[in-house]
Parts: sequence; structure tokens; C-alpha cells
Amino acid sequence: MWPIDCIEHKRDGLVLTASEIDRFIHDYTQGKITDYQAAAWLMAVYLNGMTAEETTELTKAMSHSGDVVDLSSVSGIKVDKHSTGGIADTTTLIVAPLVAAAGVPVAKMSGRGLGFTGGTIDKLESIPGFRTELTQTEFLEQVRRIGISVIGQSAKIAPADKLLYALRDATGTVASIPLIASSIMSKKIASGADAIVLDVKYGDGAFMKTCEEARKLAHTMVQIGKLAHRPTTAVITSMEAPLGTAIGNSLEVDEAVEALSGHGGKRLMTVVEAIGTQMLVMGQKAKTEAEGRKRIQQLVASGAGLAKFKQFVGAQHGSVSWIGKRPLTKAPKVFTAVSTESGYITAIHGRALGAVAMTMGAGRARKEDTVDPVVGIRLFKEVYDEIHAGEVLFTLYGNARADMQTLAQQCADQIIVEATPCRDQKPVVSEIITE
Amino acid sequence: MWPIDCIEHKRDGLVLTASEIDRFIHDYTQGKITDYQAAAWLMAVYLNGMTAEETTELTKAMSHSGDVVDLSSVSGIKVDKHSTGGIADTTTLIVAPLVAAAGVPVAKMSGRGLGFTGGTIDKLESIPGFRTELTQTEFLEQVRRIGISVIGQSAKIAPADKLLYALRDATGTVASIPLIASSIMSKKIASGADAIVLDVKYGDGAFMKTCEEARKLAHTMVQIGKLAHRPTTAVITSMEAPLGTAIGNSLEVDEAVEALSGHGGKRLMTVVEAIGTQMLVMGQKAKTEAEGRKRIQQLVASGAGLAKFKQFVGAQHGSVSWIGKRPLTKAPKVFTAVSTESGYITAIHGRALGAVAMTMGAGRARKEDTVDPVVGIRLFKEVYDEIHAGEVLFTLYGNARADMQTLAQQCADQIIVEATPCRDQKPVVSEIITE
Repeated sequence: MWPIDCIEHKRDGLVLTASEIDRFIHDYTQGKITDYQAAAWLMAVYLNGMTAEETTELTKAMSHSGDVVDLSSVSGIKVDKHSTGGIADTTTLIVAPLVAAAGVPVAKMSGRGLGFTGGTIDKLESIPGFRTELTQTEFLEQVRRIGISVIGQSAKIAPADKLLYALRDATGTVASIPLIASSIMSKKIASGADAIVLDVKYGDGAFMKTCEEARKLAHTMVQIGKLAHRPTTAVITSMEAPLGTAIGNSLEVDEAVEALSGHGGKRLMTVVEAIGTQMLVMGQKAKTEAEGRKRIQQLVASGAGLAKFKQFVGAQHGSVSWIGKRPLTKAPKVFTAVSTESGYITAIHGRALGAVAMTMGAGRARKEDTVDPVVGIRLFKEVYDEIHAGEVLFTLYGNARADMQTLAQQCADQIIVEATPCRDQKPVVSEIITE
Repeated sequence: MWPIDCIEHKRDGLVLTASEIDRFIHDYTQGKITDYQAAAWLMAVYLNGMTAEETTELTKAMSHSGDVVDLSSVSGIKVDKHSTGGIADTTTLIVAPLVAAAGVPVAKMSGRGLGFTGGTIDKLESIPGFRTELTQTEFLEQVRRIGISVIGQSAKIAPADKLLYALRDATGTVASIPLIASSIMSKKIASGADAIVLDVKYGDGAFMKTCEEARKLAHTMVQIGKLAHRPTTAVITSMEAPLGTAIGNSLEVDEAVEALSGHGGKRLMTVVEAIGTQMLVMGQKAKTEAEGRKRIQQLVASGAGLAKFKQFVGAQHGSVSWIGKRPLTKAPKVFTAVSTESGYITAIHGRALGAVAMTMGAGRARKEDTVDPVVGIRLFKEVYDEIHAGEVLFTLYGNARADMQTLAQQCADQIIVEATPCRDQKPVVSEIITE
């Protein structure tokens, strides 16, 4: 009897048909299947898995559960980008204007953050006046006019995914590759992307703990993209240490502007180049990876990327007068910490630093929370760097109530300095997975 | 974070601790754990199983989730009996007065049926005036005075089991041995039994389809009984064909009276003797199985069992004037079918006959439905019997609206007559499983 038979089929390890999956998602979204039935089904999926075909059907069903954005009025190949989330990951703010400057249209819907720091939308909202809620007409018109717009994701995009995600969160069914993969890909497909570049992160500060898990998730998503006719490429990146040097909303905007001005950190720029290259190749604005990489480097060096960023911020009513002149971040309290030791930084515990930033107000514990745009941590060294006693290690930006001494000690504890260099240095980009 | 960690532990195949299980059941009963969380947990239990210790803790937690009956004012060893449910299974109505007549106190709470025919309580309610709802004081007083009372199970017994059972029914998590075993045993333990005899059925008309599954369930329940200090014995019986010859509520009461008068069918009496023997041995009213069996046979032959039945029905305000004089069943329409063939009955499809009885009104499709006490099917032959053309095969008892011709054809189709005897005759009692 429907929907119990569908639960039983997955419970018994059978392969669900496209119409079973489609009907299950449709009926759940309509409230005809209860949360407890969906929860039992999710646990069966968690434990018995799904084939690539089932995962693709689930993705398609969720992507069609609400509005589907029509980007056909924008000419060119619309390449979307998604990161599975990490600490100090401001890649989107850098790579989006760069590829837009190269002629790949960026029509991006982005989320708010849940966890250590804000999402892209929270970061953009730290710019005075910036509007993240445009009408569909304004959004498309801006992409056609200047090649780039980034807005908040509408609640009408993939509502089935929203419902299922909340349920997974409460029922111990989050860490399932078919469920994670379909959740991500359903939103990208509903957002109208022709092609997708994924930044799949692993390590201490990421959702996937090991490189192997990240590769598995990446392969699943690339496979979904293939079966759903949305060419997808995944870049596997390390989150064993923070990606950039800024943790906090306006601090990450500042870091993006610096990066677009040619002063980006090594790790961050490695990922920016890797993602940007894939976006240019998929968007047919570069014939080879080598050509794509060179083009990204030129757009940084020429200032064309920064100019596109300024145009983009201005188009969405954000203040631009500060760009290239002074930092955006002005916090009530600032505290600079210097290293007491000389040696090599062998580890920076990003997750723990993220937790400190969150206690400062940079992130959200619950969806309803608001983020404080100006607080956070700015590192002056990256993992594996050499450091000398007395050199600046980091600056903290706190609100008026912050106990800066205590916070600084908590941060300092997460930066490990040893006499000899780290012997097991992980490359920040380890693999490109493509169909 | 509680209760997600408990779901995750079972999801990951860990053994839950007694306190985890206890808290999960407690919090779920109190509404502190949602249905969707319990559903995810049930699916994890279904797929990853439970150890004997976990199953026992689950049983104890559910048995303590509501009222626990205190039978200490009744002297002697209170031996309860439970059947996993079958077609034409009126064993309780026969065996309970027999063992009571032998001095084993019967203080039994019984359920209503869901499915093909009524439960013991529905059958007793087909006797005019019979009261199945006594106060706890009346119930105990009657057991002390005449050695037997059978009442409806209070909603306050094992409420956690009731909640979980309804949830399992809607989430494809019914057919799990730890969940079935703990559901049955929790109610028996909460009902105050010192010792338990289980009739675990397998076959077409039973919940467990194979003998192997029934043995597994029986072993699990016997093990729970041991760990919970309630000695438990299980009798494995075949439900490949109906047990007795009556399917329907008052028809089954009539069959019980006939059996107590010495005219019980072969299959039914085999089970009555097997169960009765175990109850006498566990209740210490017989030293050996041989002695117990002889005692059961004597109590039938002497009429002591029938006298006890009459006393029991009278004590609960039921009419007794008909007992031993005329059948209880008086249906608006009666139809007798004779065999058109000669040969051997090689199969009687009990499940299909039960379905016919249910369409006649003998059972419930939903909990809210009422049963019609007088309708049903009475067989005049058992499976494996020889039959001659023209001999009576069955009688149908229908309500005023019943299309007797169609119903009779549906029944006749379920009774298979062949030229040669069945080569694969299954014994009705195949095994006694004890600690």
C-alpha cells in the first residue's frame, strides 16, 4: 500500500523506479506523506544506499518540486559553482567576477550560512546598501547587462530538499552520499545552470572528513550531472586548514577585494584558479585548462576582475567608494596577536577557529539567528609557513562586549608552531573529477 | 545530541545501552521524541537488528511505560498464554478453563482482533451479557474466587508499545523479530504473568511465513523471558491450514464448547493439549509433560473444563443457558455446501477463507470497525481428510445482505480436493522451544 511499499522496497534493498521516487517526493512535498514515513524512508536510503540512476531521479524530483529558474534569456553557457562548505572560503566572491569578466554569465542564487560563518549572501550583505533580493526580472536583466548577479536563493527553489534536509538533520540521516549529492545537485539544477563546477572539500573544517569520502561524493555528483544532462566537474580541495586568511563576513569581502587586486593568499588563489579554469573551460571561454588558468591570472593582474566586482556591487546598490581604498571592516574592538615562538606552522585548526568566530557572532547556530557582519579573525600566516617570534599571527575583530584576551588565547591555541616543517603537507587541490 | 545520537548509534550498528533504550522509550511515550525520530530509529533497528540484551531492555522499557498489573494477591504461579495469531484459532477459550480447572490461575488480559476474525475479547462478547470490562478489583476478586477471568486489555498497559506499533504499521517496520518479540513480551510482562506459554504460528494464515522464521521469533521471546526472569516456553504450530473448523466470533465460541465437551477437531485438540501441557508444567500442576497431557485429556473427558467455562462465563454476566444445549450462533442466512468431488483434501487456504469471513463482517479492516458476532464459516472437514462427493464441506452463516451463492463459491475455491492424499503433510505442532 502506497507509500509503505516504497519504504519497504528501499528497506529490502531494491532499486526504486523513477516513478516511485518521483511520486514519493511529490507526495511528501504536498503533505500526503507524513514526516515519519519520510524519516523511515530516509533511514532506509541511508543504510541501503541508492544507485546512480536512483540518485539522479531523486535529484530531478527535488529540483522539480518548486520553481525552476529559466535562464534561456541569457545567452551563453551558464556555469554555476558550488562549494560543500569550509572555513575562510570566500572563493565565490573572487571567482564569480573573474569568470564574468571573461564572458561566462554568472546568474547565481546563493544561500545564507548555517554554522561557523555566513554564506555568500551574508558576506555580500555586509556591504552597505547591497541588495540580495532582486525580482526575477531585475536579476535576469542585470545578468544580461553586466554578466553577473548574485541573489539569495528563493524559498520556492527545491522545497522538497528544504523539507527533507530539516528532517535529515533531526533523524541522523545527514551523512549519506546519495542524500547529500541529490540535495546539492537539485538546487543547482532548479537554479537553471547549464553546467556545474563543484568544490568538494575534505578535512577537519569540512563536512567530509577524508579525501576518500569527498572523492566518492564528487563522483556521485558528477555522475548525476551526466545523467541529468548538466555537465559537472568537481575539484577536490583540502580543508585541513582554513582556505583563506579571513574568517568573518566583511573580513571575507575585504579578502576577496585584496585577492582581486593581486594580493590573494597562496591556498585561496590555488582554489580560485582551479575553479575559475574549470568554469572557463565549461563555459567555452577557454579551449584548454592551461589557457583558462592563464586567462584567470591575466584578469587578476589587469584589474578586470576587480572592475567587474565593483560594477556588480554597484548594480545591486552596494557601496563601492571603499573598494581599492580602505577595508570594509570597522569593528568596535581590534586586537592583534604576535607569535611568541619561532618555527613552522604545522597546523591551523580551522573548525576550532570557526567556533571562536561563531561565539563572536560571525555565524549562526540556528536559522533564525542574525550574523554580525564585522566580527571575525584575520590570519597573517598560512599553514606550513615559517614564522618568527614577534611576527603578527592574527588580528581579532570583536564587538563591544567581546573579551578579546580570552578570544585571542582561544585562537592562538589553534595555531600549532613547531621547530621543524610539517612532513605531511597536503596539496590544497588534489584532484579534478570530470565525467 | 539526544535523541539523534541514539538514532545514530543504532544506524551505525552499535549495541545500545540499557539506559539509552530506556530513555528513548520513556521520552517517546512522553512526546519528547517525535514520531519522525522514532520512525528513523525503528528503521535502523529493522535493518541492523538488536542483541538479546537490547531486545530485553526494549521489552522492559515498554512494559514499564504504563500500568503494571500486580497479581500478587492471587496465589500460585500465574501462567499467561499468547498466540501470534491465526485462522480459526480458538485455543484460548478451550485451554484457559482447562488449566484453571487444574488449579493454574488464569488472570488474562486479551486483545480485540485486527484482521480476519475477532480476538478472544470479540469472541467472548458474542455471548449475550458477557462483560469484558471489569474493574481491577472485580478482575482479581474473580480470579481468587473461581481461578479464571479474561478481560479486555487496558489502554494503560504498555502504551509505548501501542504508539510504536501504530508507527511501525505506517512505516514498513512491522516484520522485525526484535520489534515483534518485544511488543508481545512487553504486554505479557506488564500484565503480571509469572510465566508465559507462546503459540508461535507459521504458514499461509500466519504472520510468520516459514517455520524457520517462527523458530527465530520463538527463540528470541524465550530468551527475553529468561533475561527478564519470566520463564517462557514456545510451541511452534503450523498455520498452513485453519487450526479449528470455525471462522467467526460466535462460531468459535460454539467450537470451544464442543471441544470442551469432547468433540474437538484433531488439529485444534493437538494444539490445546500442547499448550495446556506446558501451562500445567510451568504452573507446577504437573511434574512431567506426560502427566500434564493426561490431566488435560481427563479434564475434557470429565466435563470439568466445560463446567469451569460455564462458571467463568456466568461470573462475567454472560448467558449460560445455551451451553451444552444448543449452538450460540443464530445467523440471518445459512448456506450449506456439499462436495462435488471425491478424494482427499490436500489444502485449505486459511488466509483466503479468513478474507471471505472478513468481507462477511467477522473481522476488522480498521480499529474503529465493529465485528458482526454471528457471521462466519464452519468447516466439516479438516485438511488431509478423505471426502466423498455429496458430503457436507462447510456451512456459511451470513447477515441479511449476504450473497450466499457467491460467498460459497469463494470458499469452495479455497478447499483443494485431489485424487491422492497430500504427500507433504505438516505436523500441526512441530517443536517445543524452552530455555
